[in-house]
Amino acid sequence: MRWASEIAQRTQAQLEQPDIQLKRLASLDSAGPEDLSFLMPGRTPQTQAGALLLRAEDRGDYGGVCLIVDNPYLAFAQASALFDVDWRRQTGIDSSAQVHPSAQIGQGVSIAAGCVVGANVVLQDQVSLGPNTVIQQDCQIGAGSQIAANVTLYHSVRVGLRARIHSGVVLGADGFGFAPDNGRWVKIHQLGGVWVGDDVEIGANTTIDRGALDDTRIESGVKIDNQVMIAHNCVIGQNTAIAACVGMAGSTRIGRNCTIAGAAGFTGHLSVCDNAHVGAMTLVAGDIRHPGAYAGGVQGARPMQDWKRNVARFNQLDQLAKRLIALEKKFTD
Amino acid sequence: MRWASEIAQRTQAQLEQPDIQLKRLASLDSAGPEDLSFLMPGRTPQTQAGALLLRAEDRGDYGGVCLIVDNPYLAFAQASALFDVDWRRQTGIDSSAQVHPSAQIGQGVSIAAGCVVGANVVLQDQVSLGPNTVIQQDCQIGAGSQIAANVTLYHSVRVGLRARIHSGVVLGADGFGFAPDNGRWVKIHQLGGVWVGDDVEIGANTTIDRGALDDTRIESGVKIDNQVMIAHNCVIGQNTAIAACVGMAGSTRIGRNCTIAGAAGFTGHLSVCDNAHVGAMTLVAGDIRHPGAYAGGVQGARPMQDWKRNVARFNQLDQLAKRLIALEKKFTD
Amino acid sequence: MRWASEIAQRTQAQLEQPDIQLKRLASLDSAGPEDLSFLMPGRTPQTQAGALLLRAEDRGDYGGVCLIVDNPYLAFAQASALFDVDWRRQTGIDSSAQVHPSAQIGQGVSIAAGCVVGANVVLQDQVSLGPNTVIQQDCQIGAGSQIAANVTLYHSVRVGLRARIHSGVVLGADGFGFAPDNGRWVKIHQLGGVWVGDDVEIGANTTIDRGALDDTRIESGVKIDNQVMIAHNCVIGQNTAIAACVGMAGSTRIGRNCTIAGAAGFTGHLSVCDNAHVGAMTLVAGDIRHPGAYAGGVQGARPMQDWKRNVARFNQLDQLAKRLIALEKKFTD
Repeated sequence: MRWASEIAQRTQAQLEQPDIQLKRLASLDSAGPEDLSFLMPGRTPQTQAGALLLRAEDRGDYGGVCLIVDNPYLAFAQASALFDVDWRRQTGIDSSAQVHPSAQIGQGVSIAAGCVVGANVVLQDQVSLGPNTVIQQDCQIGAGSQIAANVTLYHSVRVGLRARIHSGVVLGADGFGFAPDNGRWVKIHQLGGVWVGDDVEIGANTTIDRGALDDTRIESGVKIDNQVMIAHNCVIGQNTAIAACVGMAGSTRIGRNCTIAGAAGFTGHLSVCDNAHVGAMTLVAGDIRHPGAYAGGVQGARPMQDWKRNVARFNQLDQLAKRLIALEKKFTD
Repeated sequence: MRWASEIAQRTQAQLEQPDIQLKRLASLDSAGPEDLSFLMPGRTPQTQAGALLLRAEDRGDYGGVCLIVDNPYLAFAQASALFDVDWRRQTGIDSSAQVHPSAQIGQGVSIAAGCVVGANVVLQDQVSLGPNTVIQQDCQIGAGSQIAANVTLYHSVRVGLRARIHSGVVLGADGFGFAPDNGRWVKIHQLGGVWVGDDVEIGANTTIDRGALDDTRIESGVKIDNQVMIAHNCVIGQNTAIAACVGMAGSTRIGRNCTIAGAAGFTGHLSVCDNAHVGAMTLVAGDIRHPGAYAGGVQGARPMQDWKRNVARFNQLDQLAKRLIALEKKFTD
Repeated sequence: MRWASEIAQRTQAQLEQPDIQLKRLASLDSAGPEDLSFLMPGRTPQTQAGALLLRAEDRGDYGGVCLIVDNPYLAFAQASALFDVDWRRQTGIDSSAQVHPSAQIGQGVSIAAGCVVGANVVLQDQVSLGPNTVIQQDCQIGAGSQIAANVTLYHSVRVGLRARIHSGVVLGADGFGFAPDNGRWVKIHQLGGVWVGDDVEIGANTTIDRGALDDTRIESGVKIDNQVMIAHNCVIGQNTAIAACVGMAGSTRIGRNCTIAGAAGFTGHLSVCDNAHVGAMTLVAGDIRHPGAYAGGVQGARPMQDWKRNVARFNQLDQLAKRLIALEKKFTD
């Protein structure tokens, strides 16, 4: 339960009606008289919600408690924190966790059951580790970071302040490096680390490999969704957002404030400038030097018969183009 | 070892020969005189198998024990259960598992070593948890469900009856939701849960995120392969099957009895009707409103030189089309 | 710290200058006077590195310690092993690990905290298991294999000598097999195992499913990157390398010495010959019978407007081709 006035304070909203208690944050459709919801700009407030985050000009005849803001979606995000469950039900180190005596543990740290924390690890204040998470030697995790259950950090991974790292994430596994030697592969041991800045979120089952010699780097403010693969020596610039299932081969450099849509791929050893936006399932196989939107592919679903015909023609495309050119030539002769 | 008569009972087969003991269920080629195999309709029973599940009309001169059925492939599936290893070698709670005192544990539940079960969790009868699995607070798991090793359920995930959830699965991690605020991202805390129906199977390392406000829903009978990513607020209809590496962005709604082939993608905020079948590596970027088969893309492997030429032409395609149109115009003038 | 002479011995290099101690193995750019680096053939040795692995003819005016080799990249790989951290900080079985009394544990085996080792498991000499790894009954792991933290092996998985298996890997989960029965799916229990040869590396969060009846097989020398999905009954030939995010449907057979680039897909029940090389994001939907390079798709990133125009034309491609043919016919009449 939260008071509308608490919400107003958090979202810098102007509270236009008497204060009430709010049970849930809910969508317009499912919100009831005890719930808070939010109204996207220009929409009509048809809802049973007891309170609404909305712009003044969209109020219409809404009869509930108004929380007037400029940006209702941002306010919704800010309010959502107040309704979340606290990951850390307890502080302290569970008796079944195994923490190396050389580890430095800050104030208010929570280490859940079954965790293993290696030698020389530093966990700053208010770090929490979910059950069965493994943090290997020489890692450092910044204050306020929340590491979920069943996460693995290999040795010498550095995570900044206020990170959120979800279950199944693996940071610092070996990059995929082998030198060919008469048909066999000789392993290139991966001697770099992983460096993660502040305010980074990393989704479930994402993997970020350690660098071959230098570090793989995730700059501050980067948000990474689930099942993303970031190979050795990639560098992701500040505040870039990467959707699920994206894969980046080694030494891909992404600029700042980029957005990468789901299942896009990067062939490695290339750079993408700041403010580039890459579409779903697109393959980036060379540098992107100009800000803007990029896409590739013709994977859009079509009825099977149509698709088959077009694919057959695609496989004749060079030949068709030559026939067109020949015809043009004949015609203009 | 299983008796042929046991198999006959399980598969509702007519046993036409004396009962024998069978050691393994094996393919036609590798089965020996002590093994059971099955014959797809219309095939010839050339095999050393000691017993066969087959249609009466396909018997030919096969001399082993016949188990006559209408649908040998279905009978094979039914028989396979009798030859499987039981996941639960023991019942009871391992002394190294940590189960919160408020958890409700049913009859015949098995909780393996290293598991962590949170506050208010309900595990109904005959649930089994593999080693090092983590079930966080307020989860509920229906009777007969088998959760493998190293699985993570975040708080407030509901799983129905007879589920099979494989290792590395993460249910209920945060959906990927952020509101932009002057070039930075403000987290939208994910307040919904995950709701999974009955008889659902979820493959290794698959992730299903919790909803933003409402639940992400997986209806009964759904089968999901490995490394699938299902984002917040998706709804998957009954008995739909999803192959490996599929990714669905938020608020994708899939109907009933659909099949989704490997590595297909869905851009989110769209609906797919019942009985739609989507091909491998296809991108669904809008609603599918009619049952049937859909595919997209020209990713089919071609010799590199052919492919390069066709790709070059694809990148001129709009221009080539315009030249064709111009030529048609000239010609008809 | 390593002596240059140790490096020379490991890489079979000719050491041309007095022996010095080396602190790190580093890239040309970042190496300092106490570091070793390597020079790719034909490049100029502009570096602060104290010692260089290089070809005699590339020495130029480099003033540091020369380690002369024929193949500097291979020598770099060989030298990298000397600078790596040892995964096994300790040998022996941690007191919190749970090892079944029937398991056979070799000499020098390391079993970290929280591991669970099942009945009849065989861990040969010098095997190491990272924290919270689960090895279920009847598995066998060959001498010198390093299994990282949070790995899961289901029952009856066989791994050969000197494997490296990274965190989050799941070997032996059920293959995705179901028989349809009046709109519902009947599970085909997966009775085969997983067989992994010698000198195999498997990247983080990769999944390899157990066979339906026979084993899924990964032959010796195979290298697999992160987040790869290998379905039931696949066979991967010796020394083949598979990059991240590749997915293979059931019964895909890959030959020897192939390379598979990132996010390629295989539709299953097909064979790829030895020495085939498949490009990124390519879909292999039929046999590949001739060695060589293959690619598919037009996913290459393009500015959004160009891309939209070409996609629109692609969806008219069959029609455009027919119009071209009609025009040719008219013209030649």
